Amino acid sequence: MDVVEYRPERHQYVWTFGGVAPSHRITPGTLLRLWTEDAFSGRLTRSSDWPSQVLDMTEVNPQTGPFYVEGAEPGDTLALHIVELTPARDWAASTTIPFFGALTGTDRTALLNDPLPERTWIYQLDRAKGTVLFEATSAELRLELPIAPMLGTVGLAPAGREVRSSLVPDKFGGNMDTPEMRAGVTCYLGINVEGALFSVGDGHYRQGEGESCGTAVEGAMEVTLLAELIKGGAPEWPRIESDTHYVVVGSARPLEDAWRASQVGMITWLGELYGLDRLDSYQLLTQISESPLANVCDTNYSATTKLAKNLLPAGDAFGGMHRHLRERARDR
Amino acid sequence: MDVVEYRPERHQYVWTFGGVAPSHRITPGTLLRLWTEDAFSGRLTRSSDWPSQVLDMTEVNPQTGPFYVEGAEPGDTLALHIVELTPARDWAASTTIPFFGALTGTDRTALLNDPLPERTWIYQLDRAKGTVLFEATSAELRLELPIAPMLGTVGLAPAGREVRSSLVPDKFGGNMDTPEMRAGVTCYLGINVEGALFSVGDGHYRQGEGESCGTAVEGAMEVTLLAELIKGGAPEWPRIESDTHYVVVGSARPLEDAWRASQVGMITWLGELYGLDRLDSYQLLTQISESPLANVCDTNYSATTKLAKNLLPAGDAFGGMHRHLRERARDR
Amino acid sequence: MDVVEYRPERHQYVWTFGGVAPSHRITPGTLLRLWTEDAFSGRLTRSSDWPSQVLDMTEVNPQTGPFYVEGAEPGDTLALHIVELTPARDWAASTTIPFFGALTGTDRTALLNDPLPERTWIYQLDRAKGTVLFEATSAELRLELPIAPMLGTVGLAPAGREVRSSLVPDKFGGNMDTPEMRAGVTCYLGINVEGALFSVGDGHYRQGEGESCGTAVEGAMEVTLLAELIKGGAPEWPRIESDTHYVVVGSARPLEDAWRASQVGMITWLGELYGLDRLDSYQLLTQISESPLANVCDTNYSATTKLAKNLLPAGDAFGGMHRHLRERARDR
Amino acid sequence: MDVVEYRPERHQYVWTFGGVAPSHRITPGTLLRLWTEDAFSGRLTRSSDWPSQVLDMTEVNPQTGPFYVEGAEPGDTLALHIVELTPARDWAASTTIPFFGALTGTDRTALLNDPLPERTWIYQLDRAKGTVLFEATSAELRLELPIAPMLGTVGLAPAGREVRSSLVPDKFGGNMDTPEMRAGVTCYLGINVEGALFSVGDGHYRQGEGESCGTAVEGAMEVTLLAELIKGGAPEWPRIESDTHYVVVGSARPLEDAWRASQVGMITWLGELYGLDRLDSYQLLTQISESPLANVCDTNYSATTKLAKNLLPAGDAFGGMHRHLRERARDR
Repeated sequence: MDVVEYRPERHQYVWTFGGVAPSHRITPGTLLRLWTEDAFSGRLTRSSDWPSQVLDMTEVNPQTGPFYVEGAEPGDTLALHIVELTPARDWAASTTIPFFGALTGTDRTALLNDPLPERTWIYQLDRAKGTVLFEATSAELRLELPIAPMLGTVGLAPAGREVRSSLVPDKFGGNMDTPEMRAGVTCYLGINVEGALFSVGDGHYRQGEGESCGTAVEGAMEVTLLAELIKGGAPEWPRIESDTHYVVVGSARPLEDAWRASQVGMITWLGELYGLDRLDSYQLLTQISESPLANVCDTNYSATTKLAKNLLPAGDAFGGMHRHLRERARDR
Repeated sequence: MDVVEYRPERHQYVWTFGGVAPSHRITPGTLLRLWTEDAFSGRLTRSSDWPSQVLDMTEVNPQTGPFYVEGAEPGDTLALHIVELTPARDWAASTTIPFFGALTGTDRTALLNDPLPERTWIYQLDRAKGTVLFEATSAELRLELPIAPMLGTVGLAPAGREVRSSLVPDKFGGNMDTPEMRAGVTCYLGINVEGALFSVGDGHYRQGEGESCGTAVEGAMEVTLLAELIKGGAPEWPRIESDTHYVVVGSARPLEDAWRASQVGMITWLGELYGLDRLDSYQLLTQISESPLANVCDTNYSATTKLAKNLLPAGDAFGGMHRHLRERARDR
Repeated sequence: MDVVEYRPERHQYVWTFGGVAPSHRITPGTLLRLWTEDAFSGRLTRSSDWPSQVLDMTEVNPQTGPFYVEGAEPGDTLALHIVELTPARDWAASTTIPFFGALTGTDRTALLNDPLPERTWIYQLDRAKGTVLFEATSAELRLELPIAPMLGTVGLAPAGREVRSSLVPDKFGGNMDTPEMRAGVTCYLGINVEGALFSVGDGHYRQGEGESCGTAVEGAMEVTLLAELIKGGAPEWPRIESDTHYVVVGSARPLEDAWRASQVGMITWLGELYGLDRLDSYQLLTQISESPLANVCDTNYSATTKLAKNLLPAGDAFGGMHRHLRERARDR
Repeated sequence: MDVVEYRPERHQYVWTFGGVAPSHRITPGTLLRLWTEDAFSGRLTRSSDWPSQVLDMTEVNPQTGPFYVEGAEPGDTLALHIVELTPARDWAASTTIPFFGALTGTDRTALLNDPLPERTWIYQLDRAKGTVLFEATSAELRLELPIAPMLGTVGLAPAGREVRSSLVPDKFGGNMDTPEMRAGVTCYLGINVEGALFSVGDGHYRQGEGESCGTAVEGAMEVTLLAELIKGGAPEWPRIESDTHYVVVGSARPLEDAWRASQVGMITWLGELYGLDRLDSYQLLTQISESPLANVCDTNYSATTKLAKNLLPAGDAFGGMHRHLRERARDR
């Protein structure tokens, strides 16, 4: 098995999907052992650090990559299996950034209100317990919250000659910020350019659905991935498969359109898996869909449609790719 | 314990929240054994029944009630504990209604497309197994889906002198269509008029989150409720408490506003429960919120914010009302 | 010509469309000379009056009416020709109401920001010049703005047994807040209940498109109307005809849906007027539509589609009703 | 006066803002005589041409440029004065593209409906009359519509290292599709990269507000521009100044956010021009804003806020740049 290990230096961080030369060229099937810096580029380290003082907004959400996959062509499908996600530091940070987040005016939801106050929370990690510690500043409340490591950002070069900020989620994946992107899942992305040019970043030690204040428990992450190539079959929107669920992620505004995209994407998938026509899939989805939100704060909002496999007949998505990668991950 | 049993005749169905004389006057603490007709008013009985032919759109989503609660005044809180939900028939129905549903143009998302085709699915209930049977019409697929009975519609008379259709969800509750409204939970609604005037209906044998095609597995239901009155404390948006979760339901368009209402509602609740200020609650919510959608098809869309109690310190919402009603339900 | 004169006393104000007994029964063709109170119910009279101190939010936007039109049945069309709108006072008021307006968080666009500051502007009317005086509070700026009297609220009893607040615009008209509702136009509304039960109110001495802060130059108004009945022909959304334009008003959220409703409504109207199919109407509309916004602050947002008659062949909307009423207004 | 004449060959068309080497380097003050191909890249020439058959969707909306402005730096302002827009052909085209347009499901407003039928309209230009001819296909209707030439797309390289498709409108301008972009106006754009790198395209012989079907009367255009550089002063959103109006264009989804951006942008501008604080500007805007929509079909929707200069004191926007360019255009 080809193995790539990569911990980028600060000058090697990338800030876009597309528009950047690959850090590595890999063959399909390669195992990647990566390190990702946190979304603040490591600049938020104390609860006295205010975003407006310490952050450089042109250098947020650094990505590790991009990786050029040999043989990948437009219309193909990239399968990224997340083998492991391990917090790379013993602490993580979250904060309120002025005019950013779901419950404040922003540059798009342009209002006349002053920004919310800035406040920073540092979460200490207890590796033994597998928890991070929330410490309230306005009351005597300390909560040990189980970690649930995930990657906020997984994506590849966009279509249409575009280059997009790593802050954006869209059809190319990107900053979807869905808690479904955790160890054990396989993410399928439609490839738009030769080599796919994927990258990952934005580790969260945990995150609620919707990521309301705009920043999760953000921390540097050790990321182990298996990257495979499927010829053809490119899905319009990102798909995720776990041992227990099928998930489609849509990203758009308003939020209903993000969700509609994920629903229509899943209807397409159900048609592929079971030969159902659109109306039958629509009906079935209506009765079994789980619909946890991903983010309601980014450039596009992201919503998911999620189906439990135990409600469905055995399927064989992408030729059993998830099962195959799961086994390879175990055998490594 | 006062007990009311009520199975309305067809001429007793009510179609609005507000604007209707009470069917009963009850004292706080009363146990209600009710029967609710399905959302189609029982008119959709075969897969050959097309909505445009058999439905009377002025008589959909009939409610059972309304109930006048003695002593209830504006600003008070109605606590409805759902003791039991039992399918009242051995079958249920779902369908596609022209220009209704999340994935079609509607009278509001006004487009030039023709309506989607009409199709009706009848689900047979297997009481022993606790399943309903989905039968595809376009492929050889039959799926036994576990029942998960819920009430689509729980509400009371609105504020501001308004009378709203039973198809509408809003601050008064109504047609929220959230799967969280199942047996074992307590729903808290802010009271707007003397007597509260609540009613219930729209039983679903199961429903996915978002109710995409617009109709769940719709069936008549035996409903057992405990109705209590809390003086004062009216929440702005409906709240639900179970043994395991706190939930707030927001209803608005676009969907992000429905969700924002549920988030701000939960931030308020967290402040009440634990003395957190808004920023601390915002932060905590960001890391622990579950955000399953309710409906993306009704007059307003409904989204929920849901918190697991096991992540939080013990709380005492509404003076322990849920625990109290839970016990009374067991002891009945 | 039947003439009704009516200046309601404070206890006669109505606050809803539907749900209220008629103030008068009139025959089709009646001329109405009405007086409407301002949207603040006359409670905001000085720049030192703050809404949170002087307004009663359960008594805003009082309507004059409702009028029961003899012979009006569901499916018929009410034609209201606005003969004259004359400011009834020598001053008018505007203000910022906490958590209300387009550029602030509201109860639906629920955010964590504090409300914007309250401030009240009193506009003095100069009848000779036909202007109101804007006086800035933060700079030495005084502007004489031409008056452009309009009615913010024109509506009738809603469908579906509903009763709606006078703050709401929807298919029944209501609080559309469009500057197109000025003297010289005819407004066509689809009738939902026997007698139509229409009312009017919310005079604005002038208003910009969108009514961003939520309140126009609000003033009491002398209103002269001609009310006619057209059997059948009920439009789905309110239509307005002037000597120079056709207008359709859609009301919904998000704003694109309000506009879509107005566009589809106009496509229907073009089909009626010229026999065009939907695609031809869509194309023509694309090239000639004016699309001035009405309000982006009310319960539903309102947008208009407006076509200049001089770009179109002579039409004969509703059998020439506008021309007919125009002549009757001149001859009165 | 420096003059650049440029009619790009097909291989010189550009499809993005950013990401392309400049076609020319110009000094501030240069007069540009340009030719722009139509949005269909000239591939739609007959009413029997269907988009799905003749269009290459990777080659739509070609731009002429980009132009590198000597001395332009991030934070500066580009002033583009449109001297003349002259139809370059004697015909133009419009069409319905599957899953594109305001009144159909799209890839974002993802629905299950079939696409609308494709139909193409060719408009013959009568230069003497200054009209284009609309010919209905479903009825005997031929309308001579006055031409009103405009540029759908005016933009420069985006911020944040992004490269955006020429189909996108955003803060960098781009595909705003506003009828306000006509001869005689000056467009101000905030510069994001050295040299500004602006380009123009997408001539419309006329277009209604909202561009509902997604394509205007699209035609090749002779474009005469004056390009000036203002050091500093970069506006957040594109501004347009004519002899009679100030306009700000916002682009976002949902549509209310596009409009909010334009409103807040105008409030900022009013503050700069007259020293008003935000609340006074908000109030004034509320009473005098015109709010014609631009497009409700593109990747972002665009809405405008437009103020008549004759309602306002004399201003001196950007140091009188518009007046200055107007004079230079006359003197050339």
